[in-house]
Amino acid sequence: MNFPIIWKLLSIVAMLIGGMMVFSLPWALPALGHSPSFESAGFYGLLASIAISLVLATLLRRFGRGAKIEQLYRKEAMASVGLSWVLATLLGALPFLFSGTYRESADPTRDKPAERMNIADALFESQSGFSTTGATVITDLEDPELVPRCILFWRSSTHFLGGLGIIVLFVAILGQGSAGKALMRAEMPGPTQDSAQARMQHTSWVFAAIYCALNFVLTILLKLLGMNWFDAICHAFGTLATGGFSTYNKSVGYFAAAGYEHALGIEMTILVFMVLAGTNFTLLFYLVWVHAGRWQPLKIFSDIEWRTYMSVIVGVTALIVAFGYFHHSDFDDIGSALRYSSFQVVSIMTTTGYGTHDFNSWNSFGRGVLFLLMFVGGCAGSTGGGMKVIRHILFLKIMRREVERAYHPTVVRPLRLGGNAIEDPDLRRNILVYFGLILVIFVFSWMAVVTFEPDHTWIDTDAGRLEDKLIDSATGVAATLNNIGPGLGTIGPTSTYEHFSWPTKLLFTWLMMLGRLEIFVILVLFMPSFWRSR
Amino acid sequence: MNFPIIWKLLSIVAMLIGGMMVFSLPWALPALGHSPSFESAGFYGLLASIAISLVLATLLRRFGRGAKIEQLYRKEAMASVGLSWVLATLLGALPFLFSGTYRESADPTRDKPAERMNIADALFESQSGFSTTGATVITDLEDPELVPRCILFWRSSTHFLGGLGIIVLFVAILGQGSAGKALMRAEMPGPTQDSAQARMQHTSWVFAAIYCALNFVLTILLKLLGMNWFDAICHAFGTLATGGFSTYNKSVGYFAAAGYEHALGIEMTILVFMVLAGTNFTLLFYLVWVHAGRWQPLKIFSDIEWRTYMSVIVGVTALIVAFGYFHHSDFDDIGSALRYSSFQVVSIMTTTGYGTHDFNSWNSFGRGVLFLLMFVGGCAGSTGGGMKVIRHILFLKIMRREVERAYHPTVVRPLRLGGNAIEDPDLRRNILVYFGLILVIFVFSWMAVVTFEPDHTWIDTDAGRLEDKLIDSATGVAATLNNIGPGLGTIGPTSTYEHFSWPTKLLFTWLMMLGRLEIFVILVLFMPSFWRSR
Repeated sequence: MNFPIIWKLLSIVAMLIGGMMVFSLPWALPALGHSPSFESAGFYGLLASIAISLVLATLLRRFGRGAKIEQLYRKEAMASVGLSWVLATLLGALPFLFSGTYRESADPTRDKPAERMNIADALFESQSGFSTTGATVITDLEDPELVPRCILFWRSSTHFLGGLGIIVLFVAILGQGSAGKALMRAEMPGPTQDSAQARMQHTSWVFAAIYCALNFVLTILLKLLGMNWFDAICHAFGTLATGGFSTYNKSVGYFAAAGYEHALGIEMTILVFMVLAGTNFTLLFYLVWVHAGRWQPLKIFSDIEWRTYMSVIVGVTALIVAFGYFHHSDFDDIGSALRYSSFQVVSIMTTTGYGTHDFNSWNSFGRGVLFLLMFVGGCAGSTGGGMKVIRHILFLKIMRREVERAYHPTVVRPLRLGGNAIEDPDLRRNILVYFGLILVIFVFSWMAVVTFEPDHTWIDTDAGRLEDKLIDSATGVAATLNNIGPGLGTIGPTSTYEHFSWPTKLLFTWLMMLGRLEIFVILVLFMPSFWRSR
Repeated sequence: MNFPIIWKLLSIVAMLIGGMMVFSLPWALPALGHSPSFESAGFYGLLASIAISLVLATLLRRFGRGAKIEQLYRKEAMASVGLSWVLATLLGALPFLFSGTYRESADPTRDKPAERMNIADALFESQSGFSTTGATVITDLEDPELVPRCILFWRSSTHFLGGLGIIVLFVAILGQGSAGKALMRAEMPGPTQDSAQARMQHTSWVFAAIYCALNFVLTILLKLLGMNWFDAICHAFGTLATGGFSTYNKSVGYFAAAGYEHALGIEMTILVFMVLAGTNFTLLFYLVWVHAGRWQPLKIFSDIEWRTYMSVIVGVTALIVAFGYFHHSDFDDIGSALRYSSFQVVSIMTTTGYGTHDFNSWNSFGRGVLFLLMFVGGCAGSTGGGMKVIRHILFLKIMRREVERAYHPTVVRPLRLGGNAIEDPDLRRNILVYFGLILVIFVFSWMAVVTFEPDHTWIDTDAGRLEDKLIDSATGVAATLNNIGPGLGTIGPTSTYEHFSWPTKLLFTWLMMLGRLEIFVILVLFMPSFWRSR
């Protein structure tokens, strides 16, 4: 293992994070109109975090002196990606700790004082941001006394960085591995045909530009729809990264509850941008770019993954409306049925996790389908988490092919996707292994949560019942592993992860990292032979 | 497709089933001391079923005239196995229908008359017997007015036939496919080394002999422990086939409740025989046979699958005792904790499904672990259902190897099992595909049950709550697909499948068949190209 190159790359990450924190500082000032007075705890907490990040960046750069980018082989690349995510989580947690942010307000009826975030809370929140999960441990976001505005802004900034990171990473590094490459479109856009590396780099920049532009456009739109700048920026960050951190306890549902004139417009705008954020950025590229002299905006409709993605969204929404409205009267009228179910389906499917309606109160069909949707996720090459639509398409195709092979053992037919044969011989195996790993991780994590989480969580609260522990724990694991955010029961869209014990919070933190980086990059960090071998 | 050979084989199946029904006839006579009076409905119902079976056997034999066993190629073998299971289910359902057996007793408080079994009920009960699942739709087994003793005996006989069938089938037919072969021990016992086919046939006979001998021994033991002959035979059938049909509503728990002197002895004897029934019959062969001049009873301890199987049983029992006794006081004292949890763990792990304690009232950890155990099942080459221990061992090994492959892409190491390298190149793929198929079938069946089962089942009953629908449905699918029997909640060990709607009962019937024949043989029956192609 060539460590200097790893240190060099990590120093860039530390620098980036320290730099990004600077943008949170202004929100501590009352001049911007969001904090009633100067937020000294938040401001100095951020300053200290910036200082630590920059000192660390300098140290790492010194350790990495003389390393050249050409020394970045497969193993070093894997280690760098995994470790930079770990480093980001650690640095991102500092502002929460240094500012003394409260995770829970005081409860005078039970004589309970307000509680500050501990290390596990801060790591959870930081990882939840960078992995664009959006699960939170903070029960009251709206009181500036408990959570400084500048810290809230930092929290949303981690979404922005995480979403950007995964887009760039996906193309630049993960895209070189066989698994990543196979999942990308065969024809990568990019004017230069000279070298794969140059094209990769060019694509990274284009994708990053699309991502930033979408963030900018959504911010403007949300501002025009009546949000203030603070909310507009934070919700744009949460949407385009498919994250889900809001600045309100009721998430996006706040705007309707607070009587915003354009609440429906806000919800639908966010819905459209969630759909875009879960779309392969290659397709967005064709939508807006003139490539090789031709503008091909309709290319998006011929993409098999995108068509499946949209079909699932539309189909599941229709089913939930049918079941929830006609069978169970979960909704008041057909309009609100459409409004709430479409938003929730898109929010879960794209792994964003914003909420406008308590889907925890839906009937079993709706809750079961949402749980399964968690594992679907967005398209490959998007900021969406989950297992990605394309993997499910291929998985079902492989299963069908294998049943046929039981009576036609000698006939070998290639897998086809949208009319094109897929030639990568490792693809079948990679897809099957990915499903297998998700299954193993899910099952063991589920049992771990059920084992170590005390029962009183489900006995003491209104949201739960002891018999719900099994299903709540399952959705907690699914929601973190797939980077969604909310689950069912005690972690429903109107609740938080605050009540979990710290070992479970750390387990969830690890699951979010695993899910975000598609498992391998994180798992190998725990294998001694990875570090030993050349 | 060469149909005559298929008809010929099916005629043997029909003949066997008709012949087996004859043994149920005597139990209709009061002379044997179990029916208070001559059970005319049961007796003539059985006679009619026998007549239909034999007429069908004659017809099929005529259609199959001139077919030779050498014409049995792979596809014909698959079709024969699948269709004979279908035929057995249909014929086995006849006695339930013709005798007018009641699935539910009258409920005077709700002004509800007693209800007879309909076609879906009869098919479910028949398939549950042949597939050695042991799930039942009959709520009151103990009243001879509702369920004639001779029909109850037929119900248990289907377990015996199903267990025998799978043992013979496994060796003789499934064993020839690559999947079956790979799962069997490399060294098959058998004195003749001349041809693979002769050895297969010999092995089939030996296994069948072991199976029958174990049934005989257990019957004698249970009789000695205080059961009457009827109960002894029926419970032996249910145990060795890893079935689970009892003759009492409380299952094996009846004997303690009814104050049998040796109730503990009965439970522990059945426990030991359940463990044996879930053991690879090759190992039992070494345990009792003198092979090649040597007696090697200790060979069983060097078998990696059997060691894992025993470790899981012991380990999970210990965990459930620890959680259930020390944390939750689910049990009265440490003795009963050991007694009940070991029985339930063995019963679920071997896919038998007998019950002595309502595990539905256990804590979340116990219930969750039992749910997962359902997917483990017995050893390969046993009568146990589920996915088999060996598949799980290999699956975990493959997963570990694949994570290593992420940073060592060029190093190809063979899978090892107990020190021996496995050379079958298809094995990895087969294991992964099997897990994939189980996952797909589980998920879609689960959603189907949640969608089509009306909610009032969970609202009307004491056992359930609407919020439990998701988990109850999941365990119902798991319990039928893995041939267990009881699940959680409304289908817990003290309840039945009676309350499900008929489409769900047919779905469960299909799942039991899928699980019993390890998926492929049944799935291909539904693929048009299987029948079209040569």
